[in-house]
Amino acid sequence: MAIQDSYPENLAHCYGCGRLNPHGHHIRTDWDGEETVSVFTPQPWHIAIPGFVYGGLIASLVDCHSTGTAAAAAYRAAGREPGTEPPFRFVTASLHVDYLKPTPLGPPLTIRGRVTQITGRKVVIESTVYAEGVATARGQVVAVQMPDDFGKS
Amino acid sequence: MAIQDSYPENLAHCYGCGRLNPHGHHIRTDWDGEETVSVFTPQPWHIAIPGFVYGGLIASLVDCHSTGTAAAAAYRAAGREPGTEPPFRFVTASLHVDYLKPTPLGPPLTIRGRVTQITGRKVVIESTVYAEGVATARGQVVAVQMPDDFGKS
Repeated sequence: MAIQDSYPENLAHCYGCGRLNPHGHHIRTDWDGEETVSVFTPQPWHIAIPGFVYGGLIASLVDCHSTGTAAAAAYRAAGREPGTEPPFRFVTASLHVDYLKPTPLGPPLTIRGRVTQITGRKVVIESTVYAEGVATARGQVVAVQMPDDFGKS
Repeated sequence: MAIQDSYPENLAHCYGCGRLNPHGHHIRTDWDGEETVSVFTPQPWHIAIPGFVYGGLIASLVDCHSTGTAAAAAYRAAGREPGTEPPFRFVTASLHVDYLKPTPLGPPLTIRGRVTQITGRKVVIESTVYAEGVATARGQVVAVQMPDDFGKS
């Protein structure tokens, strides 16, 4: 089960990773030891220039994989299973992506994440995108636990 | 005419801003004095949580608006009109987005860019996303002129 499968219904509509968004990317993040992993195959139209993946999609993969990793790590740190109450759900405070080389369009992309800092309501995640074993982009996300009054002010 | 309208055909398929990508966002960047401006209305499915715009889309807007700004600025610096030969086309070396507050889903978003550095083949752009006049995200993009051997190695 991916961490996103455990998000409560009202938090499962994200275009990047919400299981209930019929138009979305459905990014799914699992643990692999101390790292997290997602696999995503871009669509033929997700292009930058012909033959290469659109950088905005890569940023989206880094974003949702990282906030998913933050949630998974928060459950681990709390000694709880994902899906137990209260739910952990993180939003992105900042997103940084370094594009190391062009990402070929066609093969599945693997995104691997690791937590570099977890303090209070904040988790910092480094996520790297690989195509056929080659790192093509490296991202850093600062994720913060969604405030109860998110969007209310 | 937006800067993206001047991209040569082989560079006009970008999912974010290519006029020839039928599935894409069609981001269009124009000059407004010393700044550049794009207006984009997210689709109802571009959500993070219900009522708010997906952060990966915001990153995409910042990305394509900024690389478009880089191209527009390069033509200006060269004293040439967009569309004259040889074409300027930039790729993203790095993308950084700070999410200042939740971006409401519904109203058109305005993205305003300005060049903070232009040296050789590199342009640094700061782009801010506004919803109903309120800045909700601020991005910085390092754009580099696309190398002739892009994707060849």
